[in-house]
Amino acid sequence: MAASAEEQQGFHPLDEVSLVSYIKATPALAAPLGGRLDAPLTIKEVGDGNLNFVYIVLSDSGGSLVVKQALPYIRCVGDSWPMTRERAYFEASALQKHRALCPDHVPEVYHFDRAMSLIGMRYIEPPHIILRKGLIAGVEYPLLADHMSDYMAKTLFFTSLLYNSTTDHKKGVAQYCDNVEMCRLTEQVVFSDPYMLAKYNRCTSPFLDNDAAAVREDAELKLEIAELKSMFIERAQALLHGDLHTGSIMVTTDSTQVIDPEFAFYGPMGYDIGAFLGNLILAYFSQDGHADQANDRQSYKKWILKTIEDSWNLFQKKFVELWNKHKDVNGEAYLPAIYNSSELLSLAQKKYVKSLFHDSLGFGSAKMIRRIVGIAHVEDFESIEDPSKRASCERRALNCAKAILKGRRQFESIEHKSVRDEEDV
Amino acid sequence: MAASAEEQQGFHPLDEVSLVSYIKATPALAAPLGGRLDAPLTIKEVGDGNLNFVYIVLSDSGGSLVVKQALPYIRCVGDSWPMTRERAYFEASALQKHRALCPDHVPEVYHFDRAMSLIGMRYIEPPHIILRKGLIAGVEYPLLADHMSDYMAKTLFFTSLLYNSTTDHKKGVAQYCDNVEMCRLTEQVVFSDPYMLAKYNRCTSPFLDNDAAAVREDAELKLEIAELKSMFIERAQALLHGDLHTGSIMVTTDSTQVIDPEFAFYGPMGYDIGAFLGNLILAYFSQDGHADQANDRQSYKKWILKTIEDSWNLFQKKFVELWNKHKDVNGEAYLPAIYNSSELLSLAQKKYVKSLFHDSLGFGSAKMIRRIVGIAHVEDFESIEDPSKRASCERRALNCAKAILKGRRQFESIEHKSVRDEEDV
Ligand SMILES: Nc1ncnc2c1ncn2[C@@H]1O[C@H](COP(=O)(O)OP(=O)(O)O)[C@@H](O)[C@H]1O
Ligand SMILES: Nc1ncnc2c1ncn2[C@@H]1O[C@H](COP(=O)(O)OP(=O)(O)O)[C@@H](O)[C@H]1O
Ligand SMILES: [Mg+2]
Ligand SMILES: [Mg+2]
Ligand SMILES: [Mg+2]
Ligand SMILES: [Mg+2]
Ligand SMILES: [Mg+2]
Repeated sequence: MAASAEEQQGFHPLDEVSLVSYIKATPALAAPLGGRLDAPLTIKEVGDGNLNFVYIVLSDSGGSLVVKQALPYIRCVGDSWPMTRERAYFEASALQKHRALCPDHVPEVYHFDRAMSLIGMRYIEPPHIILRKGLIAGVEYPLLADHMSDYMAKTLFFTSLLYNSTTDHKKGVAQYCDNVEMCRLTEQVVFSDPYMLAKYNRCTSPFLDNDAAAVREDAELKLEIAELKSMFIERAQALLHGDLHTGSIMVTTDSTQVIDPEFAFYGPMGYDIGAFLGNLILAYFSQDGHADQANDRQSYKKWILKTIEDSWNLFQKKFVELWNKHKDVNGEAYLPAIYNSSELLSLAQKKYVKSLFHDSLGFGSAKMIRRIVGIAHVEDFESIEDPSKRASCERRALNCAKAILKGRRQFESIEHKSVRDEEDV
Repeated sequence: MAASAEEQQGFHPLDEVSLVSYIKATPALAAPLGGRLDAPLTIKEVGDGNLNFVYIVLSDSGGSLVVKQALPYIRCVGDSWPMTRERAYFEASALQKHRALCPDHVPEVYHFDRAMSLIGMRYIEPPHIILRKGLIAGVEYPLLADHMSDYMAKTLFFTSLLYNSTTDHKKGVAQYCDNVEMCRLTEQVVFSDPYMLAKYNRCTSPFLDNDAAAVREDAELKLEIAELKSMFIERAQALLHGDLHTGSIMVTTDSTQVIDPEFAFYGPMGYDIGAFLGNLILAYFSQDGHADQANDRQSYKKWILKTIEDSWNLFQKKFVELWNKHKDVNGEAYLPAIYNSSELLSLAQKKYVKSLFHDSLGFGSAKMIRRIVGIAHVEDFESIEDPSKRASCERRALNCAKAILKGRRQFESIEHKSVRDEEDV
């Protein structure tokens, strides 16, 4: 049989068995596996059904690692939805770049094999779990806002024009332009499909049928989403994670690790910030669906609200601190000779941060809306079994998102009462 | 003697003599030179001292062409200001692309030699002159607004996301990211130097010394310019000409030809539109300096004002017409399934165009300011011999620019009275 085009390019999909041979033949993987490749390995596939295959590899010698492989299609849809394997290259590049900027919150990449679309990286060991699951279980993470504000401030500031020369910036922009297939996937599922009749859209039917139809018929909403969609494609403000929802974050009460930046590209900072905040707001509105006799979730809801507020407030504080600290380095956007008094610089920073805040609220709302009436829903709501109860949580989240998207330019601070308001409805 | 690095790359600077041998050895140049390369040639260098060398080549056999060569520095400053020769590649690429979109107003490229940084193109024959010179002479061009609105609408619309898929768009963006040296030159001379003490800044001294200092101390202005500078670098909205002032346009009363897009890159559309409109406003304010007994220039000023207004109004009309005509093609920014009524699409277009209008006013003002207090001045003012008269014209232009830059978001239409107001001061 003739070799397929993929095989000719040196690619073959792995499974638990063939991965063993791959590992044994890859010296770069010896170190994390306890220094030797000859000890027996235990391998388990844990990719939770999204885009890729993820294997946890444990060696009898005590070492461990995770292997992630991209196949030329979207796992959860199947090979009817092809998707470039090059996403693995951008994921590896972004992990390495973001880890250099924020080592505390990004796992180490041990090995990258472009032909095989394969990344070997740190196994983020138990008790780490996916943040979304922790939020559903009602676990408080006292350091989450601190850690995530750190991650966002560093990755965004240090890959923006506030820190880099235009020359370096445009080099990065050009490199990540090639991750366009992933950008187009986002465009479709976040900025387009929810606002039209689309094959893969779904909602908690029949309860939300009218709400979904209302989204498709809301002219004001559609005008706002058009602006955000253009900004998403056109504005190369920083190297984004590109998929920073609560399913891309692994946590313990002490540790926060950001994974899965395969959608990385140069885009508007507010898209990352909004993804994180928007998914926290979704978690917030899902809590009533998880309340039971033992736990009414009221105090947990307060913790989520506080985490949302702290995340933004700490982010802006840290972001401006980085700006002040590095204002005399390479960044060409605000030259010290022009912004030559602390008063003027501070005005410039306030203007910048305010506009970033409004972008974040816009993108955050868009991310919320698409999780309720688009293709990919979130476990926060999906795990609420009673559909009428689920629908009522979703509706409040949807209404909140719509109100924020339309009214965000009036928001002066994250303590704005929109989320709380919707709650009183 | 060892060959220089440049020679090794196949580059050598030409002059009137060596250009003859170059042409004789280049079959692609035979056709425009009347079909033969053996007829005697007359060659004249006409580069008007800006960045590059431009030769007009006339053949005894009746043909003609223009040869433009980029040297590895800025001609008007000298080799103390190095500048990549690759600008010729981007100029040739943009000329070809824009000519494909708007053949009536862009000259044909016959030949491009990347190693030599050399473009062979149509000789835009007399009586064509540079528009700026026509404006100084007080010549009316009845078709100018129609032609330039055509050029801007077509080049901008057809290289934007309103017409192209994101995939094609990002390919273009990545390609032109490499023209970053030219972008940085703009950043410096347009968005930075005028707002700080900079080596090459100059103004009509001592008359405008205080005005120039006031620009450097105007916090509101500096906040506005920061926003425009970031947008200039970050926002890849369309393939711009990048230097669309009245010195990049050659005209007769019947014909309008746009040359010199060596600063081409994917940037905000308003930068091109603003360059054109801003330079017309400069021409307007310079007229009093050219008035004499024979001609008080009052009716010419009215014509310039009308041309400014017509240019914008025709541009927006044509741009929206192109949008309507091509709304069902490849553009992904406004899917017909979402913007699914002519009423909604029209709202979206109004919003888009309004924001483009404000961008254009912002960039146009920035281009005006830099011509009065920055490094590169315009002949419109420079040719006014009496410095106090020149300074008074420049001051009114500067004040007008500052007012527009700060107040542009309140402008509902180009008929806004700002330019006229400043006139009454
Ligand atoms: N480095 C890691 N350490 C531990 N578990 C991981 C690691 N990377 C991924 N996982 C697990 O695999 C799942 C899927 O990984 P992810 O990178 O999100 O893949 P996908 O791109 O398919 O969404 C995660 O939800 C997490 O449970
Ligand atoms: N195709 C052409 N036909 C006729 N004259 C031209 C042509 N191109 C340039 N010129 C003349 O040469 C001058 C300089 O050309 P330009 O392309 O603006 O060079 P630069 O990049 O140095 O500004 C123009 O002002 C114009 O007078
Ligand atoms: Mg999300
Ligand atoms: Mg994932
Ligand atoms: Mg993923
Ligand atoms: Mg020129
Ligand atoms: Mg030029």
